Amino acid sequence: MRDITLRDVAELAGVSPRTVSNVVNGYAQVAPATREKVERAIAELGYRPNVLARNLANGRSGQIAVVVPYLDTPYFAELLQAIIPAARKGGYNVLIDQTDGDRQHEGELIGRGSRGFLFDGMIISPLGLSQQDLTVRDLALPLVVLGERVSDGTFDHVGIDDIAASTDAVTHLISLGRRRIAAIGDQPYATGEAAQLRTRGFRAAHAAAGLPVDESLIISTARFNRIDGVTAMAALLDREDPPDAVFCYSDLVASGAIHTIVERGLRIPEDIAIIGYDDIEDGRYSHPTISTISPDKTAIAQLAVERLIMRIGSPGPVPGVELLAEHRLIPRQSTLGRAAP
Amino acid sequence: MRDITLRDVAELAGVSPRTVSNVVNGYAQVAPATREKVERAIAELGYRPNVLARNLANGRSGQIAVVVPYLDTPYFAELLQAIIPAARKGGYNVLIDQTDGDRQHEGELIGRGSRGFLFDGMIISPLGLSQQDLTVRDLALPLVVLGERVSDGTFDHVGIDDIAASTDAVTHLISLGRRRIAAIGDQPYATGEAAQLRTRGFRAAHAAAGLPVDESLIISTARFNRIDGVTAMAALLDREDPPDAVFCYSDLVASGAIHTIVERGLRIPEDIAIIGYDDIEDGRYSHPTISTISPDKTAIAQLAVERLIMRIGSPGPVPGVELLAEHRLIPRQSTLGRAAP
Repeated sequence: MRDITLRDVAELAGVSPRTVSNVVNGYAQVAPATREKVERAIAELGYRPNVLARNLANGRSGQIAVVVPYLDTPYFAELLQAIIPAARKGGYNVLIDQTDGDRQHEGELIGRGSRGFLFDGMIISPLGLSQQDLTVRDLALPLVVLGERVSDGTFDHVGIDDIAASTDAVTHLISLGRRRIAAIGDQPYATGEAAQLRTRGFRAAHAAAGLPVDESLIISTARFNRIDGVTAMAALLDREDPPDAVFCYSDLVASGAIHTIVERGLRIPEDIAIIGYDDIEDGRYSHPTISTISPDKTAIAQLAVERLIMRIGSPGPVPGVELLAEHRLIPRQSTLGRAAP
Repeated sequence: MRDITLRDVAELAGVSPRTVSNVVNGYAQVAPATREKVERAIAELGYRPNVLARNLANGRSGQIAVVVPYLDTPYFAELLQAIIPAARKGGYNVLIDQTDGDRQHEGELIGRGSRGFLFDGMIISPLGLSQQDLTVRDLALPLVVLGERVSDGTFDHVGIDDIAASTDAVTHLISLGRRRIAAIGDQPYATGEAAQLRTRGFRAAHAAAGLPVDESLIISTARFNRIDGVTAMAALLDREDPPDAVFCYSDLVASGAIHTIVERGLRIPEDIAIIGYDDIEDGRYSHPTISTISPDKTAIAQLAVERLIMRIGSPGPVPGVELLAEHRLIPRQSTLGRAAP
């Protein structure tokens, strides 16, 4: 199909190309009858105004990329649901990419990739990338990083205070009289920063209460999924001395752990109390409802988008900052029992 | 910041602009030493190859738009998770937009909108758009529609056979001896096609079994969310003659309905059996696990992407087709009881 041009529309409508351009760009100074003629011609020819050409002229695509490891993880889905309207309010469309946490894919996105730059800036929640990978990125790309990375001064980082939040979660279990507390979700390898911060909070809460940590109760998992919780909980219940409480590094892990506990005929929280992390909607409706740490997702989205737009519009380098959103402990049935919300 | 050009890179590297272009475009005929010089200059200057210009030349953006009503609805999140790799395999990036089911927003996306065409084609799951809206769309935009719309011959439609699937769900409840079966999720207004097909299946299953339909047991809801299930189920339980089974039009609705039933101290499925729709991961781990209709999401994604790419590449108009993916009934604990998977 030969591409329809502005000139074709002008010819069919019997007006000048300038007039067609005025209609396409929504300028007001076009007589209604003329506008209608042009619009009819546009419709008849199936003309598509050349946005790419327009972007080329001003050097902006009007798009920001938001890159998450998994779209079907409720935490990321809820975060995206908050980021999109914030970006739109700032005049940007959102191009979403998901990486499966693959280091190479993530690296291409923040590097001088063959994928090129169809976006003006990026918000990324990296899983595979190490801190080191982030420092060798393309510095020309305005970047805001979510999750548990530390800014090296060239990008902004938005998150919550993971250590404090994890300490709050475990302190809640201790305050309920639990003493054999397990942790599910540790990731002691290079890129497991999020998990490692949560493990530090786990230790900090024990230290603050003068309790020893049973190292064998800290269970590593590959990801933060339901299946990881199912498997890890089964291993904990197979022990001679199972825990009386578990701090799960995500609500999905908690959901999987609860699944295993209920299948074994044990009671929550009487036999084992469970607390998760993320405050996804699922945990508010499940049985039992899941006690959790609730990061302020709206604030995270807002901070990330505002900061990125500022960065895109800035004529010179902008120093990277750490931005912390609030978090709250939300106790529910999985620690407080049936009387709880 | 002045934009760095190809010429700047060439100057710094001491090569011709043509050579820089060859490196940027990944052409093979560049000597390794030269390539390295150019890449070093690119890194030093923070040069960004102008993808917009390249796209302008070939008239393609290499992006497809995928438009869903809500990103934080697990069904759409899982579908997107399947669409993105399929698109990537076909050489396309995915631009995701979410509309909150807003008719005007959806209409702009498929119309000759001021948003322009930064994408070569679109897969849309419309909520607000009526059948009529779809027929007045921009015919120049290659379009594949998901969900329960009927093609008017100008776009393709990919879905499952909703009436058959709903009939299967309700027939399952009837086969378990249930006779007072409610339905939660009807939407009798103009754009509620998905819901209306499920209600037709609900009726068809009753008719096939020679059972009358109690119209008062068909409950309308605004959306297919957990909170809709909570509210509708509460109303059903407040009746003097509550149902002994409920067909919920999504797993989220089922999750909400189960929440209400458990809070009231009733047993599932002994007092009330529940079946949902969508087979989201949540339902495989919840208590009870949720019996459901499982649409083949991978097949839906694959069919939609393949068809769209074919449409984008086609030189002339392509007749619209209906493509049906498979579905399966998956009985779980919410209808079969604890012994079930």
